[in-house]
Amino acid sequence: MAQRALTGIKPTGEPHLGNWLGAIQPALGLARDYETYYFIADYHALTSVHSGDALRGYVRSISAAYLAFGLDPKRSAFYRQSDVPEIFELSWILSCFTPKGFMNRAHAYKDFVARNQKAEKDDDADINMGLFGYPVLMAADILMFNADIVPVGADQKQHVEFARDIAEKFNRNYGEDVFRLPEPRISESVKTITGLDGRKMSKSYDNTIPLFLDEKPLLKRINQIVTNSQAPEEPKNPDESHVFALHQLLLEAGEEKALRAQYQAGGMGWGAAKKLFFEALNEKLKGPRAEYNRLLADPGYLDAVLAEGKDRARATAVPFLEKIRGLVGVR
Amino acid sequence: MAQRALTGIKPTGEPHLGNWLGAIQPALGLARDYETYYFIADYHALTSVHSGDALRGYVRSISAAYLAFGLDPKRSAFYRQSDVPEIFELSWILSCFTPKGFMNRAHAYKDFVARNQKAEKDDDADINMGLFGYPVLMAADILMFNADIVPVGADQKQHVEFARDIAEKFNRNYGEDVFRLPEPRISESVKTITGLDGRKMSKSYDNTIPLFLDEKPLLKRINQIVTNSQAPEEPKNPDESHVFALHQLLLEAGEEKALRAQYQAGGMGWGAAKKLFFEALNEKLKGPRAEYNRLLADPGYLDAVLAEGKDRARATAVPFLEKIRGLVGVR
Repeated sequence: MAQRALTGIKPTGEPHLGNWLGAIQPALGLARDYETYYFIADYHALTSVHSGDALRGYVRSISAAYLAFGLDPKRSAFYRQSDVPEIFELSWILSCFTPKGFMNRAHAYKDFVARNQKAEKDDDADINMGLFGYPVLMAADILMFNADIVPVGADQKQHVEFARDIAEKFNRNYGEDVFRLPEPRISESVKTITGLDGRKMSKSYDNTIPLFLDEKPLLKRINQIVTNSQAPEEPKNPDESHVFALHQLLLEAGEEKALRAQYQAGGMGWGAAKKLFFEALNEKLKGPRAEYNRLLADPGYLDAVLAEGKDRARATAVPFLEKIRGLVGVR
Repeated sequence: MAQRALTGIKPTGEPHLGNWLGAIQPALGLARDYETYYFIADYHALTSVHSGDALRGYVRSISAAYLAFGLDPKRSAFYRQSDVPEIFELSWILSCFTPKGFMNRAHAYKDFVARNQKAEKDDDADINMGLFGYPVLMAADILMFNADIVPVGADQKQHVEFARDIAEKFNRNYGEDVFRLPEPRISESVKTITGLDGRKMSKSYDNTIPLFLDEKPLLKRINQIVTNSQAPEEPKNPDESHVFALHQLLLEAGEEKALRAQYQAGGMGWGAAKKLFFEALNEKLKGPRAEYNRLLADPGYLDAVLAEGKDRARATAVPFLEKIRGLVGVR
């Protein structure tokens, strides 16, 4: 039987190019080799998104984006975290087997504390208990479905290790192999995606290229990529250009080589270079954009897909939680 | 309409005299003036009880004890926390509005840390995330049912205040009076119940008088109360006697005065004083003991009572959580 891979997707903003190349594309690639579970982690987003309308909007956008880029809901389980309430009960159970020390040592938490200290604030300023405890909920997300592997960025490796350690503690205490021990799978190949200003593409820097802009606003956005002030005729160093950094992500090795030569030859202004990138990107996004717009215009279909995912996920979660309840003694 | 009072009961051991006089009796007294909710906090117990059989046993004992002492499940809602899984989803939601600083300042947590420091251990040694975060779950227990008052000991006052503060933050953020703000009600009148050795009666000191012992082992246990070495004929100071401290809890003012005089007059040995106490206690426990044994022998009835409580609690919890889901944006 194929191993099971599980991927959570946090809906905290409109999907952008970085999400596609850094997350959506590699995640969807797993469906070739694994039995795949994809879930919209709407309740994780609640640690920071405190507007109901915003959260609802992000959930729809991200769901539609995954489908538009080819997620096949017949082949993969695709569900919202909030549609599987059993996860929250399991999360409480696991919290009773999670040393608080784990959370104290969580990188994400320590980063927050470091930022607070730098700003001369209280260590825990603006840190809510959802944020502090979210690795426990993440453990429940993973362990509920007995995932074998969890593809994560290097910064999330520790969280999968926590899930593994919590599972081991639980198994040992009740003397049964209740939970499968998940392995983090670090995607080495995922490059950091550069934003308009050369920093990492991130909503919080406002330097993203949203994925589903229409052609005109997409070109306008691409024209905002920061460049140096070289004249059109001058030869340009592709390795110092944010335009090239983004454009090459879309190219095969041969195409990349040709573009590199074009930059180095001189005679191409930044406007033309951006136009070339726009055309390449637009070519790739045309199909998904149309599909995305179709999906957003048909909320009934999206709801039906997610309802099917809910049934599929709960068909596993409900009996599994019942077994766990028996073990811990609430049944 | 009557105000609503909510009481949680943590099943972490077999019920003893201290539980009855300090918790069960005052809690049941509320049913005269309030619409009462009583729940068995089985998932709170999971922070420390890591044996399924033990937890199941404690839940049955405590449920039967409340019924044996007169809890009327027709009049009050009486349910297990684990039978209302909506509470755990709400707990996650509330955690996203709970500053971590609240938990850092929780008295119960700080006591644990102080104990660890005294033992020269790591501050957070043996503290699990369930224990650290349990005031959030307690807030969910309370807010789910819009309790007006929560009767607590002085040491739990802070937790009800947290629930209140969390409710206010949530209400303010979503611009609606979603949650009623609960008030702690400190029972001043509840005396500390003395154990066999004169310390507070507590399972952890192994100095309790279990409530439902048969007569012989009950007398045997009472004979273990620590006394001084005064001879029978000597006058005795009731205010320095652990036997008197327990016995007087069962007496009306007039009876107490008479017993006091009997101690002071001399001529009554400790064996006789203990026998007197045994007789008074046995008189009070005879009826509940028979009922308790009847209930434990009829698990079907206990299950039916709790199933009815579950339906009653969920009739409130399910639609209320659905409303909250809409507000936060997962619906």
